[in-house]
Amino acid sequence: MTVITPEVRQALTAAKLSHLTTLNKDGSPQVTVVWIGLDGDEIVSAHLMESHKVRNMKRDPRVVLSLLTGTKNKMGLDEYLVINGRASIHEGGAPELLQRLAEKYIGPGVKFPPPEISSPGFITRIAIERVGGVGPWAPMG
Amino acid sequence: MTVITPEVRQALTAAKLSHLTTLNKDGSPQVTVVWIGLDGDEIVSAHLMESHKVRNMKRDPRVVLSLLTGTKNKMGLDEYLVINGRASIHEGGAPELLQRLAEKYIGPGVKFPPPEISSPGFITRIAIERVGGVGPWAPMG
Repeated sequence: MTVITPEVRQALTAAKLSHLTTLNKDGSPQVTVVWIGLDGDEIVSAHLMESHKVRNMKRDPRVVLSLLTGTKNKMGLDEYLVINGRASIHEGGAPELLQRLAEKYIGPGVKFPPPEISSPGFITRIAIERVGGVGPWAPMG
Repeated sequence: MTVITPEVRQALTAAKLSHLTTLNKDGSPQVTVVWIGLDGDEIVSAHLMESHKVRNMKRDPRVVLSLLTGTKNKMGLDEYLVINGRASIHEGGAPELLQRLAEKYIGPGVKFPPPEISSPGFITRIAIERVGGVGPWAPMG
């Protein structure tokens, strides 16, 4: 298990939209943008349906999450965080996690998902294996 | 060749920081954030060194570029563009392209790269194979 630093923890809980890369059956990459949260030292994300990315992660757990922090380094270049990790898929719990994340990503008091499109869905848990990018977690970029 | 729509062209030339996914030797994904431009209907990016991602693209041309457009759709969800493409690497020309992109990404009049870290470098050209994400280019998300 990788223990994450306070700077990484902060970047992962700042409601930044995150690019999730999974691997297709033919080995090519597939990217979507997701909401993320932290549960202990694992990154969590929720999906109402067994989407393409969920099926990809069931078959091959190797994923990358990347996000812009909105900060710049001393050279004036934009900082970003890249997490290489291993995903596991768990059935159920998606609406509750989406509701919790929606309060941060959309705003307090919002109701999401709408009841008519709700379903138990899936939760992805990502165990962090490597931290990179440009920022306090990778001073050399 | 994929002909891109005006909306895609606009998103690709709006100086949005772009997540570039390449494939490592072992098939796992590798992600960095890059500046991009358009040259005709191909996406271009510049690298001063033969970095990890450049070596990856020489070995396996399958890449994904993804970026947030900064707009929201009718449901209030953030729009984003995902380009699946095929990269080719060309030697030289990196400082000139970086200078042109820096004017858009940092600001008019900026000098980048600094002469002391300049080198002919490499240019990546990405032929667009598929356009996805959430936005006018993929109404259903």
